[in-house]
Amino acid sequence: MTDAATNMRLKLPITCFILEIILIILFGALVQYDHETDAKEWHNTNHSSHSDYDNDFYYRYPSFQDVHVMIFIGFGFLMTFLQRYGFSSVGFNFLIAAFALQWATLMQGFFHGMHGGKIHIGVESMINADFCTGSVLISFGALLGKTSPVQLLIMAMFEVTLFAVNEFIVLSVLEAKDAGGSMTIHTFGAYFGLVVTRVLYRPNLDKSKHRNSSVYHSDLFAMIGTLYLWMFWPSFNSAITAHGDDQHRTAMNTYYSLAACTLSSYGMSALTAHDGKLDMVHIQNAALAGGVAVGTAGEMMLTPFGSMIVGFLAGIISVLGFKYLSPILEDKLKIQDTCGVHNLHGMPGILGAIVGAIVAALATVDIYGDGLADVFPNVANGNVEASYQGVRQIISLAVTLGIALLGGLIVGFILKLPIFGAPPDTICFEDSIYWEVPGEEAAHDDQLTTVRTEEVEKLNC
Amino acid sequence: MTDAATNMRLKLPITCFILEIILIILFGALVQYDHETDAKEWHNTNHSSHSDYDNDFYYRYPSFQDVHVMIFIGFGFLMTFLQRYGFSSVGFNFLIAAFALQWATLMQGFFHGMHGGKIHIGVESMINADFCTGSVLISFGALLGKTSPVQLLIMAMFEVTLFAVNEFIVLSVLEAKDAGGSMTIHTFGAYFGLVVTRVLYRPNLDKSKHRNSSVYHSDLFAMIGTLYLWMFWPSFNSAITAHGDDQHRTAMNTYYSLAACTLSSYGMSALTAHDGKLDMVHIQNAALAGGVAVGTAGEMMLTPFGSMIVGFLAGIISVLGFKYLSPILEDKLKIQDTCGVHNLHGMPGILGAIVGAIVAALATVDIYGDGLADVFPNVANGNVEASYQGVRQIISLAVTLGIALLGGLIVGFILKLPIFGAPPDTICFEDSIYWEVPGEEAAHDDQLTTVRTEEVEKLNC
Amino acid sequence: MTDAATNMRLKLPITCFILEIILIILFGALVQYDHETDAKEWHNTNHSSHSDYDNDFYYRYPSFQDVHVMIFIGFGFLMTFLQRYGFSSVGFNFLIAAFALQWATLMQGFFHGMHGGKIHIGVESMINADFCTGSVLISFGALLGKTSPVQLLIMAMFEVTLFAVNEFIVLSVLEAKDAGGSMTIHTFGAYFGLVVTRVLYRPNLDKSKHRNSSVYHSDLFAMIGTLYLWMFWPSFNSAITAHGDDQHRTAMNTYYSLAACTLSSYGMSALTAHDGKLDMVHIQNAALAGGVAVGTAGEMMLTPFGSMIVGFLAGIISVLGFKYLSPILEDKLKIQDTCGVHNLHGMPGILGAIVGAIVAALATVDIYGDGLADVFPNVANGNVEASYQGVRQIISLAVTLGIALLGGLIVGFILKLPIFGAPPDTICFEDSIYWEVPGEEAAHDDQLTTVRTEEVEKLNC
Repeated sequence: MTDAATNMRLKLPITCFILEIILIILFGALVQYDHETDAKEWHNTNHSSHSDYDNDFYYRYPSFQDVHVMIFIGFGFLMTFLQRYGFSSVGFNFLIAAFALQWATLMQGFFHGMHGGKIHIGVESMINADFCTGSVLISFGALLGKTSPVQLLIMAMFEVTLFAVNEFIVLSVLEAKDAGGSMTIHTFGAYFGLVVTRVLYRPNLDKSKHRNSSVYHSDLFAMIGTLYLWMFWPSFNSAITAHGDDQHRTAMNTYYSLAACTLSSYGMSALTAHDGKLDMVHIQNAALAGGVAVGTAGEMMLTPFGSMIVGFLAGIISVLGFKYLSPILEDKLKIQDTCGVHNLHGMPGILGAIVGAIVAALATVDIYGDGLADVFPNVANGNVEASYQGVRQIISLAVTLGIALLGGLIVGFILKLPIFGAPPDTICFEDSIYWEVPGEEAAHDDQLTTVRTEEVEKLNC
Repeated sequence: MTDAATNMRLKLPITCFILEIILIILFGALVQYDHETDAKEWHNTNHSSHSDYDNDFYYRYPSFQDVHVMIFIGFGFLMTFLQRYGFSSVGFNFLIAAFALQWATLMQGFFHGMHGGKIHIGVESMINADFCTGSVLISFGALLGKTSPVQLLIMAMFEVTLFAVNEFIVLSVLEAKDAGGSMTIHTFGAYFGLVVTRVLYRPNLDKSKHRNSSVYHSDLFAMIGTLYLWMFWPSFNSAITAHGDDQHRTAMNTYYSLAACTLSSYGMSALTAHDGKLDMVHIQNAALAGGVAVGTAGEMMLTPFGSMIVGFLAGIISVLGFKYLSPILEDKLKIQDTCGVHNLHGMPGILGAIVGAIVAALATVDIYGDGLADVFPNVANGNVEASYQGVRQIISLAVTLGIALLGGLIVGFILKLPIFGAPPDTICFEDSIYWEVPGEEAAHDDQLTTVRTEEVEKLNC
Repeated sequence: MTDAATNMRLKLPITCFILEIILIILFGALVQYDHETDAKEWHNTNHSSHSDYDNDFYYRYPSFQDVHVMIFIGFGFLMTFLQRYGFSSVGFNFLIAAFALQWATLMQGFFHGMHGGKIHIGVESMINADFCTGSVLISFGALLGKTSPVQLLIMAMFEVTLFAVNEFIVLSVLEAKDAGGSMTIHTFGAYFGLVVTRVLYRPNLDKSKHRNSSVYHSDLFAMIGTLYLWMFWPSFNSAITAHGDDQHRTAMNTYYSLAACTLSSYGMSALTAHDGKLDMVHIQNAALAGGVAVGTAGEMMLTPFGSMIVGFLAGIISVLGFKYLSPILEDKLKIQDTCGVHNLHGMPGILGAIVGAIVAALATVDIYGDGLADVFPNVANGNVEASYQGVRQIISLAVTLGIALLGGLIVGFILKLPIFGAPPDTICFEDSIYWEVPGEEAAHDDQLTTVRTEEVEKLNC
């Protein structure tokens, strides 16, 4: 089942070793502990005095761990729904995430973590690195089953870089707000991945069609991923907001958005099925759209009421996307989106960006009080009008879409080079091309044999 | 396999949309951020000054997330032990929990969260909503495999309401202590569900008997649920106790109770088996009874020693219940308790209530010092004697049982209305009645076919 | 499949009940709440005044819960890779961990928790108890599939005791640093288990060889274990370091070590395979070696750069161990190491100890500033030179190896007594010897029957 082209014996080790050695060298040259992780700096009494309990570790690390679980278990298992691609789903997710978080530390550090020529890192940079990694994993979802691990590592390298550029423009130049990454993470990752999969279009993919579906237990494994994403999304959206009420409010808004989204997803799933039966694809994915859609506005005074409306709409849009839009994208636009990231991250991401722009434009001192400085510092100090902040948010969405689409186009063509060991159209969605795969059934000593033998004897008499 | 009666094409969407729209309207009319989540309130310097790091988010949210995992992964996967009901176990658990936590926010808010006509919410109300949801999921365990999702949503609506009424009477009127919910959550949820399943008695359920059992992998999925419940139960019992030593002590008591319970469950499981083999049903359930049984007394000065005795007994009672009492309940009382919630939540809940009453009655200033005010404020300020607090605890148990039994009776008859799409007796414990279900086995290219063909050829010669 | 010798009907209950009753009695006699969990002590205003929010619960409990998940889900599911040993992997892991954490509380309390004749306990002792339990579970990994639950409980009893002795010598007598337990947990647990499995050598184990491998879904279950260990290892290594920068730095060093280790593990796995296919055994295990290898030095000023080098090497060593050393250990030294703990915990543990010694020897005030007192108090106050601290670290490694090897030898011979119900060589790696095991396949109403019937009819004509 393996031929020379897809053999990873040299390609994968060379890629892994070169990338990791480059990372180690750059870390050695550029990266330092920040003042919260450095023994000397933290204990430097010339700084304002502080207790060990004031260390930001205690106020960010639980959120970081929740995000970390989303990245490795959440995304990893969400993609195990395919019947013969579980090893690759979890395993390639693991590999590219482990690479991307290191590379993201450097790329994000270049753009917003430099202090005297060095990149300073701590728990907040770890969260940001995981966030950036999430974006790469979203793109992976669009490509699932159709790429080699080497292609994925190369994609991760470029995508992380472009993510950092876009993030810098959106957050630092345009000064938009996007704590949960509706734009920077979800919209960016989805459209980048969709363009890449378009460029890598496989006209004969239907030859692997029989493997591009789930089996009973693979859908249960996928639900592990879904639920961890769902449960920890409040931590994701609130992980890097300002401390205090901001973090608290963001988590709560996300909680209610997701709950409302779940009800609309179930309702829509039954409604759009030909015989009223729920579709696992909708439950595994659409029920999460509520988290994406409050990624920008979650930290604002969206209210639980507003969050629920947004979540409710996100669930409806997402199911409709799976049911009606995905087939069109595949047939007409030749976009083979394995996991339907357009429905889970693409459209809900855009919805989230628009909601964020509207809520930002409506911000007033009357609503936020002195808390306005935390959420919209530029509005609070009079630099800009709230309405103009809303415009900035929309421009940020446009910039994000532009960089994602253009970047995906270029990276897609790079990945098309025939040197990365991509699988042939006939053996997509198949673990055994890159993994040693054991059998499906256990050795049953004699039990099954007995049954078979009896059956045979019965037949023979 | 589906007929008109069980077709969810319209029933489920209508139910989901109506419920969610009602929720959104009521949230819009009634719900507000509390002073820890509201930007203006939190930054209002007229209040006593505080740092952003004092926000209760940092002292409750990690516990909340642990509880959240118990609700969605813990309960969800615990019920996946059935061979053909994994989608429904995890999926309906997901649906009714997402609904119940929103409805609980309102119902609990009516009874103990009103401020000037508005319900104020934050992380503590989120934990309480999850707690209330847990009670509904316990009842779901008794009904597992025998109800439609619409029935479950209707049940959740009524049960959440009655839960809030009972909780108000127990905690606010009777001023009983029940931080981990031995009474309000476990006893209430179990007996409510048992009465509902009694009313919904299915005389011909044995026609679905072949599906009412586990397969090898379904038992492993269920162990994911068991272990998350077990590991995070210390967080559950301590999530809403007073801060400081109370939360710390409650978590530790629960930890030791569960450890002792695990040893007695394993011992009893081997002892009661006909050939000394461990039974997965006992391990998955009885080992958790120690968490239920210290739900009331965990925050008190029970000591690790006392906790271990309680846990040890709970494990024994629970295994004996599974082995000897459940068959009697089914045969004589016609209570078809799919998950055995009577053994995991019912009896251990009552045990927990009694232990709580005893430990409360023994409280003295000598033992608690100034900490008495945190645990028993009424005893500390001299309003009541400790012994009378013990009596209140027992009365609370009686009230809880009364409301659960009566409520379950009424709700059971409501659910009997033939409009909710319940499955027929012949197709219980079966996903495919409400879900699109893929096959069991993966497409093996040619492997399996070869085997079959060889077999056939061998037979033919 | 069961005979008198392996029947657990009396052996297991007697063992569980006697052990638990002894535990309860000793807890009653010796164990007390510490000043953070005791209501009276915590509220004693004679102590320095503190807020409830200063309770160490808030600064240790999230780490504790992460460690707890590693012990029960991480170790438990990591070992489910065997096709017919999932119940035992998760179930025996659960049982011996529940016992070991109680026993460890007492044993560790004897050596470093006594206050006026009583053992004082709180969240820090809970973390230490879980750590000690981890060591037992590592040894279990070497024995997996070849022991009865009674043997495992007996082993746990002795191993916990010896662990506490070794820990006391290393940390209190030699005053070495080992926050993440490269020596005390990993090296100790691995070599102890390796010697035990050597003493219990089974010459005819190849009769169970067909069960000593994975199936497709069992490898996916194992990945749940792997990922939880991987994600929470930063919490493990930092759980009991000093507060502030130390905890923060340790978590971050571990994060980068693991990421680098993952890339080298994938690279080595493909490189050493005959056709470039990744091997799940390597991914499941070697990718974790980076966590083990920074267990000692993680809290020191190792820098992310140093951590990545250590992790990178650990991954390479671990894969090479699986590929080339394990077969030699089995063939030449008769060490049947089921899970390859020598490759995941043994060699990386020694690497970690050596790295720790080197980094300790290089500690200077210039690097650590006033933070030196947190990490190396003896060096900071001038009691010893940094280089001598390095020597102490190496002596600690030697002591650990000595106690592990000698202890394993003695305990191995105890476990050889023919009274504990060990399985025969022909039925190793098999759940059904100790568990009620359901079938593999679900009841398919009529689907499968139809197929069978058709097949039969086809054959008969």
